[in-house]
Amino acid sequence: MSSPSDLFAHRMRGMRPSTIREILKITAQPEIISFAGGLPAPELFPVEAVRAAADRVLRDSGPEALQYGPSEGFAPLREWIAAEVQGRGVRAQASEVLITNGSQQVLDLTGKIFLDPGDAVLTENPTYLAAIQAFQTLEAKFVPVPTDEHGLIPEAIPELIAQHRPKFLYTIPTFQNPTGITLIAERRQKLARLAAEHRLLIIEDDPYGKLRYRGAEIPPIKHWDEAGQVLYASTFSKTIAPGLRLGWVVAPAEIFHQLLIVKQASDLHTSSFDQRVAYAYLTQNDQAAHLEKIRSAYGARFDLMDETLRAEMPPGFRWTRPEGGMFLWITGPAELDGMALLPKAVEKKVAFVPGRDFFPSGGGTNFLRLNYSNSTPERIREGVRRLAELCRSEG
Amino acid sequence: MSSPSDLFAHRMRGMRPSTIREILKITAQPEIISFAGGLPAPELFPVEAVRAAADRVLRDSGPEALQYGPSEGFAPLREWIAAEVQGRGVRAQASEVLITNGSQQVLDLTGKIFLDPGDAVLTENPTYLAAIQAFQTLEAKFVPVPTDEHGLIPEAIPELIAQHRPKFLYTIPTFQNPTGITLIAERRQKLARLAAEHRLLIIEDDPYGKLRYRGAEIPPIKHWDEAGQVLYASTFSKTIAPGLRLGWVVAPAEIFHQLLIVKQASDLHTSSFDQRVAYAYLTQNDQAAHLEKIRSAYGARFDLMDETLRAEMPPGFRWTRPEGGMFLWITGPAELDGMALLPKAVEKKVAFVPGRDFFPSGGGTNFLRLNYSNSTPERIREGVRRLAELCRSEG
Repeated sequence: MSSPSDLFAHRMRGMRPSTIREILKITAQPEIISFAGGLPAPELFPVEAVRAAADRVLRDSGPEALQYGPSEGFAPLREWIAAEVQGRGVRAQASEVLITNGSQQVLDLTGKIFLDPGDAVLTENPTYLAAIQAFQTLEAKFVPVPTDEHGLIPEAIPELIAQHRPKFLYTIPTFQNPTGITLIAERRQKLARLAAEHRLLIIEDDPYGKLRYRGAEIPPIKHWDEAGQVLYASTFSKTIAPGLRLGWVVAPAEIFHQLLIVKQASDLHTSSFDQRVAYAYLTQNDQAAHLEKIRSAYGARFDLMDETLRAEMPPGFRWTRPEGGMFLWITGPAELDGMALLPKAVEKKVAFVPGRDFFPSGGGTNFLRLNYSNSTPERIREGVRRLAELCRSEG
Repeated sequence: MSSPSDLFAHRMRGMRPSTIREILKITAQPEIISFAGGLPAPELFPVEAVRAAADRVLRDSGPEALQYGPSEGFAPLREWIAAEVQGRGVRAQASEVLITNGSQQVLDLTGKIFLDPGDAVLTENPTYLAAIQAFQTLEAKFVPVPTDEHGLIPEAIPELIAQHRPKFLYTIPTFQNPTGITLIAERRQKLARLAAEHRLLIIEDDPYGKLRYRGAEIPPIKHWDEAGQVLYASTFSKTIAPGLRLGWVVAPAEIFHQLLIVKQASDLHTSSFDQRVAYAYLTQNDQAAHLEKIRSAYGARFDLMDETLRAEMPPGFRWTRPEGGMFLWITGPAELDGMALLPKAVEKKVAFVPGRDFFPSGGGTNFLRLNYSNSTPERIREGVRRLAELCRSEG
């Protein structure tokens, strides 16, 4: 027999707890202005409405809300989600909706079904850090797809398919994490066509789609998915609250069935209580008005961050101007080292995430990710000033 | 590119949704008396106390309870669990406690860390169905350890280790699922010694330990674990309510660290809201009194089922007499086919789980698992009568 450490040594090669979460621990002190986290604004959580919903659920159906439930999820919530997703232009039936512990679990479940060690996954470059982690646990190989200011470049994909035979493409087409970039409609259509032609599975992760504060809505890639090659994942983390850990995936019947088996083996089902609380909240409150409140706050925070950056940052820095979501992405001069900048920033009581870890194949040292959803206007202004001062003194 | 079905065909070989859960769907009609589920008694859930706890949490710390939280779990709840587990005779520090989505997720996380396809896992024979599923998803090979009325036989293990080089032993030593059998103290000590000598990792799953209605407490195997070779898992599913999906594992630092990485990649963390509600409930109510209420109800239900079985069952049937937990295990005549009996039982409006699926290597056709926690006394009496009548007419 080997010791536990020998046993998992090969499995855990290169794995480490998320840099973001380690930084978050340091920057939890209130005197540090943190643009590092991916947190929504807690002062906008519908606390009183959730409180009323929880009370009603326990008063009206306490035993059911506290008992084991179906692995698929709470049936009325699945119906609600199917209808809501139809409103986004996605043909979805309640029977295709699987409730998960946040959309993070969709990555885990799909990885378990499709990935063997060494299998290739296509991703944007950079891409979501925790997707890298989820697929890395399964020893996937990451194949970055060339990306510009309009998102993934579909024309690059056929050659990557031929060369790497990827198990799927993972993409966040709307207000991407970390860049804030949105894939244009024309490319979405092309991607859906490519997926059908090459039988390429697409995992479309859309946590931020409802957070558009500017510009016209674009339907999800799944809108154009005639061939059933797209899994569409989203979450209540940004529209209600992340602490409830409620996400979902819409999947064609055959894949749904496999996801369900793996979900059941993973944790039986998602919290019955949280699902019922969310359902009661959604059906008894004006969700559109609440979303409008979030959108307008985030839009104002982005504008303020953008303005302050323009006023304060030295030459050589540029950044994205997303029409929604929670992040903007700064490109510094080629010689900038974001990892080296971070401890200096923390000394000046401001924090961000260095871009490096978002690049699954390395590189990306001169990028910074800034979150604007989780800071008040005063702190955005002051934090950007501190960061810009540091960048000027480093230049 | 292959189609999705080709891609997961090899992975999902032999996987199917739990028979138990499929049966549960059929037997949800109230006219069927179901001894099939593994459900606690919902009428004993502390609904009003949870309602008060939820209200207090949202009133006093709403934004925190609805925000993202640490992957390790809510710190005060980890402290509470460490203290409670110390009361069971287990040396545990809060830093060793990882909060999971029920103890089912402990199986998933440990499987991900330790198992590669084809790796061997030692288990009781029969063992917990959803453990078979969790490890089967990872294509583990099951090696049953000979078991008698006192649980696993430790003397059989060294040879199995030499022959199969298992990655770990998975065991439910107290009021086992499905048999209700409890491993005697002497064998627990021997197992801990074996684990140290052979560097065998043990996953000790203890969901039912607090449900003892008769006999003297026996400390967990982990009590004798000097070498740090035992992971100790438990849950609030049976002591508060399963719908909250709150479990935990106590793990030595090095393994804890790996579990944490995999937990984070799986779903970031367990519901902040549910964790805080559980903590508020636990610290503001008389938990000992509540447990006493559950224990005495389950003890009375077991007694009634046992008495009715003795009065009604034909010769050739015997069953276990557990001192706690939720299940008893019937051994029928060798020619009994539990799977064939089930549809006939459902016709007579009574349900159980055929034993077969609990045997990871097949066999076990003449066993039935009966749950007594989830039925009222009247229904236990009537359900056992119906089952016994069927068994008599089949004989």
